[in-house]
Amino acid sequence: MKLKQINGSVVAPKGFKASGVFCDIKRLGTGKGSDKGQKRDLALVVSEVPATVAGMFTTNQVCAAPVKICVPRVGKGKAQAIVINSGNANACTGRQGFKDALEMVTFTELALNLSKGSVLVGSTGRIGVTLPMVNIRAGIIEAAVELGSSPNHSTHAAEAIMTSDTRPKEIAVEIRLLGNKVRIGGMCKGAGMIQPGMSATGSRPAAVPLHATMLCFITTDAAIEKKALQSALHEAVALSFNRITVDGDMSTNDTVLVLANGMAQDSGAQPLNARSRGFETFQAALSHVCLELAKMIVRDGEGVSRFVTVRVSGAKNSVDADAAARAVANSALVKTSWHGGDPNWGRIIDALGYSAAKVIEEKVDIGYSAPGSKKILWSLHRGQPTKAGFKELCAAVAAKEFDLHIRLNLGAASALIYAADLTEAYVEFNQGDVSDPNSLGG
Amino acid sequence: MKLKQINGSVVAPKGFKASGVFCDIKRLGTGKGSDKGQKRDLALVVSEVPATVAGMFTTNQVCAAPVKICVPRVGKGKAQAIVINSGNANACTGRQGFKDALEMVTFTELALNLSKGSVLVGSTGRIGVTLPMVNIRAGIIEAAVELGSSPNHSTHAAEAIMTSDTRPKEIAVEIRLLGNKVRIGGMCKGAGMIQPGMSATGSRPAAVPLHATMLCFITTDAAIEKKALQSALHEAVALSFNRITVDGDMSTNDTVLVLANGMAQDSGAQPLNARSRGFETFQAALSHVCLELAKMIVRDGEGVSRFVTVRVSGAKNSVDADAAARAVANSALVKTSWHGGDPNWGRIIDALGYSAAKVIEEKVDIGYSAPGSKKILWSLHRGQPTKAGFKELCAAVAAKEFDLHIRLNLGAASALIYAADLTEAYVEFNQGDVSDPNSLGG
Repeated sequence: MKLKQINGSVVAPKGFKASGVFCDIKRLGTGKGSDKGQKRDLALVVSEVPATVAGMFTTNQVCAAPVKICVPRVGKGKAQAIVINSGNANACTGRQGFKDALEMVTFTELALNLSKGSVLVGSTGRIGVTLPMVNIRAGIIEAAVELGSSPNHSTHAAEAIMTSDTRPKEIAVEIRLLGNKVRIGGMCKGAGMIQPGMSATGSRPAAVPLHATMLCFITTDAAIEKKALQSALHEAVALSFNRITVDGDMSTNDTVLVLANGMAQDSGAQPLNARSRGFETFQAALSHVCLELAKMIVRDGEGVSRFVTVRVSGAKNSVDADAAARAVANSALVKTSWHGGDPNWGRIIDALGYSAAKVIEEKVDIGYSAPGSKKILWSLHRGQPTKAGFKELCAAVAAKEFDLHIRLNLGAASALIYAADLTEAYVEFNQGDVSDPNSLGG
Repeated sequence: MKLKQINGSVVAPKGFKASGVFCDIKRLGTGKGSDKGQKRDLALVVSEVPATVAGMFTTNQVCAAPVKICVPRVGKGKAQAIVINSGNANACTGRQGFKDALEMVTFTELALNLSKGSVLVGSTGRIGVTLPMVNIRAGIIEAAVELGSSPNHSTHAAEAIMTSDTRPKEIAVEIRLLGNKVRIGGMCKGAGMIQPGMSATGSRPAAVPLHATMLCFITTDAAIEKKALQSALHEAVALSFNRITVDGDMSTNDTVLVLANGMAQDSGAQPLNARSRGFETFQAALSHVCLELAKMIVRDGEGVSRFVTVRVSGAKNSVDADAAARAVANSALVKTSWHGGDPNWGRIIDALGYSAAKVIEEKVDIGYSAPGSKKILWSLHRGQPTKAGFKELCAAVAAKEFDLHIRLNLGAASALIYAADLTEAYVEFNQGDVSDPNSLGG
């Protein structure tokens, strides 16, 4: 597949517009409108024409009102716009929260003159505080006025969905699909409360890992059938957002939405289905977009100084492989040793041993490589330290990004998790501000 | 039960001696023997006569050589002494490690002139480094010479088993049992890699939580049958050490051993069994000793500034209650908010929602009280914020120790976990020292 990186994020595909404004959702009381210097907090992503939609949602049993609104709407298969706010998650807000989320979508439908049921919603921020609907309405009106298709507008939207993120996260790619130039664009946010385990219905299949607020919004001008789009998104999320962890905490709001408006293809052309020539190309491009965005989340994780790809192979089965990789990726002791650049395999094998995966000490290999490299420096072979020198091992983990290779040598299953270190900065950032009553749920 | 706190720790019961010496197990190279200013690193606990023994061990699949030695020896039911070293866990040390652990017990048997098979062993410290057996042998000989029954000697032993602990952890109690004055003494260590899940055989029963090095050694002059002693220890550990977490990491070395030499009772008296009058009193005293020692571990946890008792009630079943309590107690976001004294219920309900326990948002109550108090300040009632003010809630969690009450309101099962906050000091302590090759496995 030839894939070209391009500018423009969610507005790169034909027929999409976006905007991002400041409407003071945190009620900082510093005024309304896009005040200079205030981070934007309300975004719109809009397609010129109704689009096919697919979604993946948190499997947390405590799920936010916007997720409850989106699941049935995505199920219907068509949507035309998404309204997103940061600063308030609209989670644990009861009936009022549900009414507010519903008002967000209906007010956006009115403001954009779209048909009933065609708008989706995402929220991120504090838990347990109801939305300031006066500000939200003002924000939606302003965002509707500001809508545009320049890369600036998509960056405004990407900024508006940020919470503790230090930078906007955007990507767009172009591929050739059945003779047409097709584009996929996306933006996401997320830095803490990150270990998504999403499913299409928000309910928990036995096989889905039980563990961010992360939000991701993808646009494409490909023409694709609903079922094929949902299947492609499921696969892409399984290999990207459901493979990352910053702190092991799964959010109440995790959401990935994709809108496919078909505008790259002639109106008479047949939309892609899962058996179409070209579906694989689309899948690969969508997976690429999701994976790049997912990695941006880990790299920009709260206080994160290192990005480690944990690669487990040789597990008895895939559930074991996943359990082993997550035990290591979420161990406080392993993560603090990464922070120190310490090749401490003792903590790694300890975490493997208490994981739910079958592990036999005398069979375990542990090694390090540069990201994606097959040149592995082994520190442990069949449960025993190798002759690799301490300085050599320290050099291998001194890099800001490296791969940790774990071979259980018990079977053929493998798994991979994109993980981060645990730093003083994470603790400092998250200990809360007791002088700020608004911090209650955040 | 009337229970009197007394001095003397493991040497308080009749017929027990102890010692602790420095033999440079970390090979600091500062000389041999109990050098002034060096933390002791090898301990002995010895009974005058053969004692009934019971034990509980880590269920980590990667378990250390001393655990492999102890499990079958404890199974035989009799022992007379325990040799313990800190500075090196003798874990992931392969065949050499097993030989070394075996030599520790046989050398101690020789040094103390005890029968073959009568000595048990515990180790804690770095993983993956073989023991300096020359130093260990010298230490055992010196410790055998130093053996004594004064409280000083037991404090030397309690110091010798410490690793990152900032203080020795000791207790002794006296009870009346069937007309006799009976004593139970104990010492323990542990500060990081703490979430024990121990069983009698070191293998993992389905119901045992999957998650310290913690070591605990208990002595008593009660006369009690092996089976009753093992049953009493199982119950005591289930309600104490298996209920604590510092960082959620279960060690390769967790061990609790109890020696009961019967010397408080006349030689003709019948030993206690599980149906004896008096067994309940013994059980209560042993449980008290274990719980007090377990709490000392959490309070002295690495970087710990707050001690929180997480009390879950109203769960559908006990597995759910345990899963809910552990999800909250091990959430990085919840633990950092405790550090900041922030009554952030949003993170708590988020963790409940992603736990394996059945949770319905609209039924959850969350509140705070002083330790053990029934006067609860509720912050969340049936999933909704109460009218409790932010300042009032902050005051409730400002204390260094408090209880967190979670009612799921779905059933009758409950669980409790003794937990700690997550601080910058924990991260700093554990990031490792890359200038020290000996830190590899620790």
